[in-house]
Amino acid sequence: MDAPAAGVPAPPPNSVTTDPTALVVFQPSGKRGRFAHGTPVLDAARELGVQIESVCGGRGICGRCQITVAEGQFAKFGITSSEDRLSPKGFIENRYDEKRGLAADRRLSCTARIEGDLVVDVPDASIVAGQTIRKDANTIGMIRNTALRLCYVELPEPDLETPVGDADRLAAEIELEFGYENVEVPFHLIADVQRAMREAKCQVTACVDISGARPTVISVFNGYQEEMCGLAVDIGSTTVAAHLVDLMNGEILGSAGRANPQIRFGEDLMSRVSYVMMNDGGRERLTDAIRLCVNELTTELLDKTGRDRSHLLEAVFVCNPVMHHLFLGLDPTPLGQAPFNPAVSHAVRPEAADLQLEFAPNARVYMLPIVAGHVGADAAAVALAQQPQIKTKPVLIVDVGTNAEILLWDGKTLFAASSPTGPALEGAEISSGQRAAPGAIERIRIDPETLAPRYRVIGSTLWSDEVGFVESVAGTGVTGVCGSGIIEVVGEMLLAGIISPDGIIRAPQNESETSRLVGQGRTWAYVISENNPRLMITQNDIRAIQLAKAALYAGVKLLMDKANILSLDDIRLAGAFGSYIDPQYAELLGLVPDCPADKVLAVGNAAGQGALKALLDLDARREIEATVTRIIKIETALEPEFQTHFVNAMGLPNSKEPFELTRKHFGLPDLSPPDDGKRRRRSRRNRD
Amino acid sequence: MDAPAAGVPAPPPNSVTTDPTALVVFQPSGKRGRFAHGTPVLDAARELGVQIESVCGGRGICGRCQITVAEGQFAKFGITSSEDRLSPKGFIENRYDEKRGLAADRRLSCTARIEGDLVVDVPDASIVAGQTIRKDANTIGMIRNTALRLCYVELPEPDLETPVGDADRLAAEIELEFGYENVEVPFHLIADVQRAMREAKCQVTACVDISGARPTVISVFNGYQEEMCGLAVDIGSTTVAAHLVDLMNGEILGSAGRANPQIRFGEDLMSRVSYVMMNDGGRERLTDAIRLCVNELTTELLDKTGRDRSHLLEAVFVCNPVMHHLFLGLDPTPLGQAPFNPAVSHAVRPEAADLQLEFAPNARVYMLPIVAGHVGADAAAVALAQQPQIKTKPVLIVDVGTNAEILLWDGKTLFAASSPTGPALEGAEISSGQRAAPGAIERIRIDPETLAPRYRVIGSTLWSDEVGFVESVAGTGVTGVCGSGIIEVVGEMLLAGIISPDGIIRAPQNESETSRLVGQGRTWAYVISENNPRLMITQNDIRAIQLAKAALYAGVKLLMDKANILSLDDIRLAGAFGSYIDPQYAELLGLVPDCPADKVLAVGNAAGQGALKALLDLDARREIEATVTRIIKIETALEPEFQTHFVNAMGLPNSKEPFELTRKHFGLPDLSPPDDGKRRRRSRRNRD
Repeated sequence: MDAPAAGVPAPPPNSVTTDPTALVVFQPSGKRGRFAHGTPVLDAARELGVQIESVCGGRGICGRCQITVAEGQFAKFGITSSEDRLSPKGFIENRYDEKRGLAADRRLSCTARIEGDLVVDVPDASIVAGQTIRKDANTIGMIRNTALRLCYVELPEPDLETPVGDADRLAAEIELEFGYENVEVPFHLIADVQRAMREAKCQVTACVDISGARPTVISVFNGYQEEMCGLAVDIGSTTVAAHLVDLMNGEILGSAGRANPQIRFGEDLMSRVSYVMMNDGGRERLTDAIRLCVNELTTELLDKTGRDRSHLLEAVFVCNPVMHHLFLGLDPTPLGQAPFNPAVSHAVRPEAADLQLEFAPNARVYMLPIVAGHVGADAAAVALAQQPQIKTKPVLIVDVGTNAEILLWDGKTLFAASSPTGPALEGAEISSGQRAAPGAIERIRIDPETLAPRYRVIGSTLWSDEVGFVESVAGTGVTGVCGSGIIEVVGEMLLAGIISPDGIIRAPQNESETSRLVGQGRTWAYVISENNPRLMITQNDIRAIQLAKAALYAGVKLLMDKANILSLDDIRLAGAFGSYIDPQYAELLGLVPDCPADKVLAVGNAAGQGALKALLDLDARREIEATVTRIIKIETALEPEFQTHFVNAMGLPNSKEPFELTRKHFGLPDLSPPDDGKRRRRSRRNRD
Repeated sequence: MDAPAAGVPAPPPNSVTTDPTALVVFQPSGKRGRFAHGTPVLDAARELGVQIESVCGGRGICGRCQITVAEGQFAKFGITSSEDRLSPKGFIENRYDEKRGLAADRRLSCTARIEGDLVVDVPDASIVAGQTIRKDANTIGMIRNTALRLCYVELPEPDLETPVGDADRLAAEIELEFGYENVEVPFHLIADVQRAMREAKCQVTACVDISGARPTVISVFNGYQEEMCGLAVDIGSTTVAAHLVDLMNGEILGSAGRANPQIRFGEDLMSRVSYVMMNDGGRERLTDAIRLCVNELTTELLDKTGRDRSHLLEAVFVCNPVMHHLFLGLDPTPLGQAPFNPAVSHAVRPEAADLQLEFAPNARVYMLPIVAGHVGADAAAVALAQQPQIKTKPVLIVDVGTNAEILLWDGKTLFAASSPTGPALEGAEISSGQRAAPGAIERIRIDPETLAPRYRVIGSTLWSDEVGFVESVAGTGVTGVCGSGIIEVVGEMLLAGIISPDGIIRAPQNESETSRLVGQGRTWAYVISENNPRLMITQNDIRAIQLAKAALYAGVKLLMDKANILSLDDIRLAGAFGSYIDPQYAELLGLVPDCPADKVLAVGNAAGQGALKALLDLDARREIEATVTRIIKIETALEPEFQTHFVNAMGLPNSKEPFELTRKHFGLPDLSPPDDGKRRRRSRRNRD
């Protein structure tokens, strides 16, 4: 501890302090004030607006309000040190220490009382709206400021003098102890409150939703309860991915994904909308399918993590508009035809039970807002995760899926569009294409001399020409080419001179090429693998890729026109596909505008990240709700320029632009020696 | 029209007015302002805060915004008259006149434009929060300021440029046209909105609930819709009474009542609570029974009035705490034992569907707040209807039922208590007692000489000694004695000297009395009617009445003690029973404290009146919610004084007080000639 400042005589022992108040400084906020001796630190913090968390309302049970007394920082605040800055640990803190452990330098701010000038350090974990504890890369640095709050209260048993209802007494106590105003107990919960208050002798934990016009009790637990978890779910047309998150610390407890079961009603969105239009009860079947899928994922995650369903109180969903409508049980057919009018575009907050979701009773759902009839909550989530608005220079974000969601920030305005790339970029509707799954070729290199391919498949770390490769894929074989593999194979075919810049596969030029280039007349195909099964890239496959990439490129160009931007040096590829595609191959094929190779970044599942952010942080919801209303939406179908850009972008990489067709130009590695099999392994576990 | 004020030269013809604005004064509020020529009167009114009603948002369809130009009032506002004060009637007003008729002096304020200084009269029917149109005595003078509002909007069809959801567009349009802020379309309604907007080409009428934290759309109709009705229901332990009300003008469309079907589970409240405690599923059976009863009443009223169920959008319920809990589906057992703690005491606002009520889909319910565990929403409704708080002198209100709800206003504070009078005062648990129904004796006089009774029964206007009486009751016979008859017969027995002030029925004193006084030893009974069936008043009956009246009187005295009030000269008897009991007999028996006979008033079904008021007027709800929190609740069971008062009040009228036992003293009419059979006939139709 600091010695008393020079020149200030030490107070005589047992002397009465002349100033009955003490200076308290809270770090890191720097907020300060003077408080009467004996004031609990938590009360002082609240008075100054330092938001220290507490579930138990200051009863020394939850331990969430821990603080430390900062050592060695007195001088800079002009504080003369003293031995008795806080009251000594008493019964409550010792009980907490015995039961749950309290580090030597930590104090419970609800029970530690101010007895002298001091500087208080509030750790991140104790701050409402503090950053999350960094246990998982996916939530690093996100603010945890949840919409739901647990509030433990101990009420006196009812007596004849105060003939007030259980629900009213609960609401009043939450207001008193936790500072919320005008707390509502909705009608549906009154019977639960009555039961819990009686069973638990008026000691209950309420879960309060503070996101609406009034703080609302959504659930009530007998006794003290401090577990609360939530789901962040990204419902894609093809795959559904969910994270189970501990809402008390922001940690991702587990992740799971599966194919969207609606695929059996139609591969792409419009075929599902058609299914709804053509079949009585079609909408209901599609709705049931996706809800069942979410329920199965939920059960899987709860089983895997050992969490109790009754603590799963909140979920955030992001998806494109058609998935959004189908999941919410709304008719998607208006989204299938101009003017593509959604039933609702603002964020909605149903109860989980409204959607037949088997979470805790009374759990809440938050669905991010839709940007436009074609640009969904997934795009909103991407914007939320990527925050292009904090940049002063232009940023392009492309979320590549069956439809590409395109966001362009010009430094002042956020533009958005959706471009109908079709499923080719995901490996669908390609002759040898398949979804990313073990056995799928994801990386490929073609020798320009022999036309022989070397490839790597999902599920093995070896290249096909390395020793042990065959054994390493014995379980699955080599079954097809996934999205990122398609991009690479077309890029490599271009680099090897197998296809021309206008996308024509050439005929074999010598006998040795006849095993690789098969066909007749003007239609040829490239053979990757001869058998079990035979995998090849046909002329139609190349055309599908050209159409997809032209649609994507044209959408991007259209937004650049609108924003009057000529070039970019910050391009981010998002989405499951964006996470695996090699940005250099995207450049090579002209999927995105010219940009320095190191400025094209794969940013992972940004929609999923946005969902996590919205799950953890109430302010992030408000932010995206406000952002969405300010986004300029461009409807590609309405813009004649789109067609022009589209036609112009059919070439590889782009028939109108000069390019140097070398590996080096696109920042691609040389063909030999084989590159490190461990490159780009991160996130593999999220892949299937 | 007024001539121009003397001395002011008439403007030259066709001259341009130098002041481009006109003075407009709205009556009766007197609000005034200057507006540009061409301003619609409705816009001017809104700007000044004159709340002229409009369902159609100013499209000249609803005709609710009618005003008249006040003639002959210019001088007092300093207005120089002019011929062109309002724009001439144009297409819209003529169309309205053709379709629905518009009185010659009436104008539609939404389309009539200001063209000169003028005084505008706003009729009551056009004012939001104006008084109701006086078609039914029961809603005379009540303010109509409903929680639900119909808002017709015509939206442009969606287009590609504005990719905003149907629900969002509807909310925004209501905000724009009707001035509500932050309008919410709840999740459940989004599919309905989508459907209606499509089917009705974006011309829909929304029903908006403005009573909550945010204005909320609760229902949406295709096209223009201007019908809305509501139910006011008084759920008593014994009877359930409902009024169907036109919410657009406050008119009572129809009334209906029936016995509370819970009676088969127990006559009084505590036996029903016992039933719940003793029987699995008992609570559910009681809940189902009362909800079914309300549904039957609803269907009866809709059938009778020809109103459409889809327009029944709101209902208000008042009842005692046990009925309240059972109707809402809450466990009433805590109300059966100290501390009589309710599950909820504040007003609740469930959806009708939550209570299995077959109203319009999405209809809303308002349940008045409970005052205390023993003092219910019915007492709150009585306070609302009777408004004792507006008096400077003390007011006692007694709602006599199976329990008596007692309200005492001392000029500053409202005290409330409930006293367990039991069912005797309603004719139950009395040997010849019966509920008020055709055939029941409701009036009786006893000749002190012969002890012979004369009586009148419900269903006949004749006294039993009048010619034609027997024929007039041939349908029912004389079947029993109802509550008001019991009071009268005991009072008459007292006046005739048949019972002593301590309640003992005497033995016959001569042979002629042996047909009227039967029994033996110390236990005698008084025979009213010898056969079909034999009706008599036994010693036990007298004891039951004594206990009931002592409980009531003791409760009143307790409140008077608390309020430090010695005497009263404003006593109001409410409730079905209070409506039929003759106040003079109540005085005679000592049911209420001494009070000048003409100051004891039967005020009818005040609880039902309160329900009507809460149905029509949102401010009345806010008022009673605030009043309830300020009421001082007295728990009779907790007060030792209650027992003392109770014992002291067993005598008739009160053994400790001197009284003069004459008809005249109690303001009772002489026995002969027979009084007018038409006395106190009002409200008969509400009786059975």
